[in-house]
Amino acid sequence: LPDAILPLLAELAGAGNLITGEPLTIRTNGYWDTSPTKAMAVVTPQTLIQLQAVLACCHQHRQAVTIQGGLTGTVRGQVAQPGEIAISLEKMSTITHFNPIDKTLIAEAGCTLQQIQEFARDRQLLLPIDIGARGSCTIGGNIATNAGGMEVLRYGMMRNHVLGLEAVLADGTLVSAMNQMKKNNTGYDLKQLFIGSEGTLGIVIKAVLQLQPLPTSRETALIACRSFTALTDVLDSAQRSLGETLTRFEIMDGDYFRAQTQPEGHRAPLADKHDWYALAEIAGYSPEGDRVQFETWLEFLLAADHAADIVIASNQKQREELWLIRENFDIAIAEKPFFLYDVSLPISAMEDYLAKLRGAIHCQWPGAKIYTLGHMADGNLHFFISPRCSGSEDELKLRADEWVYGELTAFSGSVSAEHGIGIDKKKCLHHCRSAEELQLMKSIKRLMDPYNLLNPGRIFDL
Amino acid sequence: LPDAILPLLAELAGAGNLITGEPLTIRTNGYWDTSPTKAMAVVTPQTLIQLQAVLACCHQHRQAVTIQGGLTGTVRGQVAQPGEIAISLEKMSTITHFNPIDKTLIAEAGCTLQQIQEFARDRQLLLPIDIGARGSCTIGGNIATNAGGMEVLRYGMMRNHVLGLEAVLADGTLVSAMNQMKKNNTGYDLKQLFIGSEGTLGIVIKAVLQLQPLPTSRETALIACRSFTALTDVLDSAQRSLGETLTRFEIMDGDYFRAQTQPEGHRAPLADKHDWYALAEIAGYSPEGDRVQFETWLEFLLAADHAADIVIASNQKQREELWLIRENFDIAIAEKPFFLYDVSLPISAMEDYLAKLRGAIHCQWPGAKIYTLGHMADGNLHFFISPRCSGSEDELKLRADEWVYGELTAFSGSVSAEHGIGIDKKKCLHHCRSAEELQLMKSIKRLMDPYNLLNPGRIFDL
Repeated sequence: LPDAILPLLAELAGAGNLITGEPLTIRTNGYWDTSPTKAMAVVTPQTLIQLQAVLACCHQHRQAVTIQGGLTGTVRGQVAQPGEIAISLEKMSTITHFNPIDKTLIAEAGCTLQQIQEFARDRQLLLPIDIGARGSCTIGGNIATNAGGMEVLRYGMMRNHVLGLEAVLADGTLVSAMNQMKKNNTGYDLKQLFIGSEGTLGIVIKAVLQLQPLPTSRETALIACRSFTALTDVLDSAQRSLGETLTRFEIMDGDYFRAQTQPEGHRAPLADKHDWYALAEIAGYSPEGDRVQFETWLEFLLAADHAADIVIASNQKQREELWLIRENFDIAIAEKPFFLYDVSLPISAMEDYLAKLRGAIHCQWPGAKIYTLGHMADGNLHFFISPRCSGSEDELKLRADEWVYGELTAFSGSVSAEHGIGIDKKKCLHHCRSAEELQLMKSIKRLMDPYNLLNPGRIFDL
Repeated sequence: LPDAILPLLAELAGAGNLITGEPLTIRTNGYWDTSPTKAMAVVTPQTLIQLQAVLACCHQHRQAVTIQGGLTGTVRGQVAQPGEIAISLEKMSTITHFNPIDKTLIAEAGCTLQQIQEFARDRQLLLPIDIGARGSCTIGGNIATNAGGMEVLRYGMMRNHVLGLEAVLADGTLVSAMNQMKKNNTGYDLKQLFIGSEGTLGIVIKAVLQLQPLPTSRETALIACRSFTALTDVLDSAQRSLGETLTRFEIMDGDYFRAQTQPEGHRAPLADKHDWYALAEIAGYSPEGDRVQFETWLEFLLAADHAADIVIASNQKQREELWLIRENFDIAIAEKPFFLYDVSLPISAMEDYLAKLRGAIHCQWPGAKIYTLGHMADGNLHFFISPRCSGSEDELKLRADEWVYGELTAFSGSVSAEHGIGIDKKKCLHHCRSAEELQLMKSIKRLMDPYNLLNPGRIFDL
């Protein structure tokens, strides 16, 4: 019987750490899918020993497991499939060490991102990763999925903030690689295997994180441009004038801006007639000097005609209003269905790509709305595509996928800049990874998890 | 016969690309050991096809190969062992692509670091890796060894600048992972396997590198401190006042400073009585603003009594004179033998570690000189230890190793911050990597190079 393992797990998991029966029915697939989990059980170990014992038992019985953090992933990597045991790290959620001189902390996998952000901020430090799910998502999930977000252009992805980690392999073996230094060239950097591999090679249970000094200044401006070329000039001059104080550089196309600032939407602080808008934000350590540098740069943008118009936030309230246009997109996506994409491609290829994509879509779906926004400096664009034509949602989505991903290959783009592959994007992976890469990935998976028990069927099928 | 493979390789390598006999005798082990190579032959392929054919042939005949770049490594990873074929990438040395909008270039493995630095600088861009060997070392070697250097505190190690790469596996298979974007979460980040693995998993043949805007300002100061605690305060306030413009933060202990500035040495721009000296350098994009910010910070250091004395370079000549004290160490190491170390440990542990190390050494070698310098912000210290007592050099080195590495374990330090393991440091690896880590490394090596043909015996023995 498939559930013959449950009494064994109940023994090993520790009292109250195996959820089955009635209590299981209130466990859902998470933020994006609130239907009940299909897991046979959820295990919530409280200690490393319990986790290792549970995994060793699953290994012995060839029992597949799903690893769960805050259940906020967008590609269903965390959604338990029928017959799987879900292992949630929710009870291992302590920040166990902090060192103010090294500016490092050690966090257990189940800590939420916000918990660590606040811990750092209270000590005038910054964990420089931020995503919308901060209140629910866990650092273990952030590491397993190599989380990105708004400030990658300055600080890099989650990968850049992990100095060391501990992971448990499929058979319960602990691999401890708790490096605490920026420099450590002693053999293979094993942590890289666990970062971004979506829980398929091991379960990250804790990590040493590098914090940064908390910036003390912040300035934000909304910049309107007449063309994508002008937008490129704005970004280049930002990098050359502002250096690493440039913390965010988010773009929106005119259609998105107009949808968001329609009469029932957000207030438009600039005329809505322009082709492109950028939200640029700096954060530094010298409030007066940073403000001067930012304003000097903005004046240059107008003088050089890179910018058509500019508005600068003069206080925190205005700053938040500007960000609402970018972030609160309920208004733009009011008309269903809409499809969200998360691609990356070289900045130099974006204009051509967008022209081809818009051409392909509008040729077939003349009424379609395509909203483009995203993290330009990282090469990361998001699209909301709303077909506004008849057809089943699944069918329309397939066709949109074909256009978005099909055109991407020619520009050496990626089908997932930051959301990962999970279950949903497996079928698109071939657009951006070669046969040799896929074969090497699968070899590594087979080496480290020979029975394909950890998050099986995520990223690829074996 | 072991050299039966040579006629086959001559055929496959291309005309003039197999060096044997008389021309082989002028090939040396490199910068640190100018004795003739012990390689059976040196192959210098000009094309990927030639390289793949040579490797496939070696694989078929179970022929071990050494991979060679600029031959400047300090741990003998690049030194061919008797019976090995050396493969040098010296003829694959072209910068094949450059994109000013993406600020990326593609370089073949045999390009020297300096060649790429100059290419970038001519375009107002920066490849932010710099080491003393820049004129000889190759980017392939920099990637394979995850090179570090002076500016890691700001820009990170070589790993951070590689967006994508191509590598050839032991059997000649090409793995192309030429990603060009900052964000690309589509399965395992395979490039990480080849970066820092010292040529044991594959031969990096080209890479996509991320460049940065070239800074337009530079300011340098020499800062004297009365204690290590004060030095820590100086670093912390530098990070909180200067942010990422802080590009270098190098420390020297008083003994090193005094040895370097003795009458026949460099000019001492400050009194030589202090315990510690730091060289701090900023580089930014706003010359006037940066200078003000730097001077404001230096004034704060004096007011807060973090610094005992400060001198600021007022021009490029003075800047170079300051750096000579740190970098031109012929004076300090005039008395032979001396042993060079490259360790890392948490900044918070440095003072205790140094006290223990000095105690252990001076207890046994009362006349020994211990000079400490290094990249403090990266947790990276270098020591020059000169025993000044009788005994064979090998014996003395072994004892110094015991003290330096023995004390390190308790502080979670690393036996090689940036130089790698190669052949020389294999015996020390256990001080900082666990049995489970070593086992996982070896499993990966066996998976990717089952006959142990690529740089065998580097990092570990199988």
